[in-house]
Amino acid sequence: TSEAFASFPKFSSDASKVTSCGAGLSKAFIGQRNTFTVDCSKAGTNMLMVGVHGPKTPCEEVYVKHMGNRMYNVTYTVKEQGSYMLLVKWGEENIPGSPFHVTVP
Amino acid sequence: TSEAFASFPKFSSDASKVTSCGAGLSKAFIGQRNTFTVDCSKAGTNMLMVGVHGPKTPCEEVYVKHMGNRMYNVTYTVKEQGSYMLLVKWGEENIPGSPFHVTVP
Repeated sequence: TSEAFASFPKFSSDASKVTSCGAGLSKAFIGQRNTFTVDCSKAGTNMLMVGVHGPKTPCEEVYVKHMGNRMYNVTYTVKEQGSYMLLVKWGEENIPGSPFHVTVP
Repeated sequence: TSEAFASFPKFSSDASKVTSCGAGLSKAFIGQRNTFTVDCSKAGTNMLMVGVHGPKTPCEEVYVKHMGNRMYNVTYTVKEQGSYMLLVKWGEENIPGSPFHVTVP
């Protein structure tokens, strides 16, 4: 019920204020930890959601680490070559650049 | 551009067919790995997105591991007591039960 969530803070956020950087936003390698960072410190309060999908199968693993002050480090691993879709959302909204197109050579 | 994504498979999915289980869907403990599993094997093709937020700050870390056949193991850690919101989405849609209400004693 909605009452169960009465104690939650209302999320107020602006995904357009999120910035991201790192090689993992455009290229990834099999057998390596592919990383990027996401800075949501100026984008209000929300939850970072990350999804990765390969040409055939889902991403092997995704690890999202909050470094403090709504700065995040994201690490993911892949198992197949080809074109991946990387979705990074701040709550319901895509951050600038998302969905990202990641190539796995 | 949309052309860049021409090679992606079209996602066709039904989040209502996703099932989940595990203690981490309702209760979590500071300093422990809190886990649950998500079975998307009957829910078509999409990306699993997981977000966790505490009373004041984001979740410390979230780790999503694909076990194969669209079965996922999710582990997360928390740093503060109180009521957490746990969002589990299969693409754009919440899975049954999401958002989950997690208590950290």
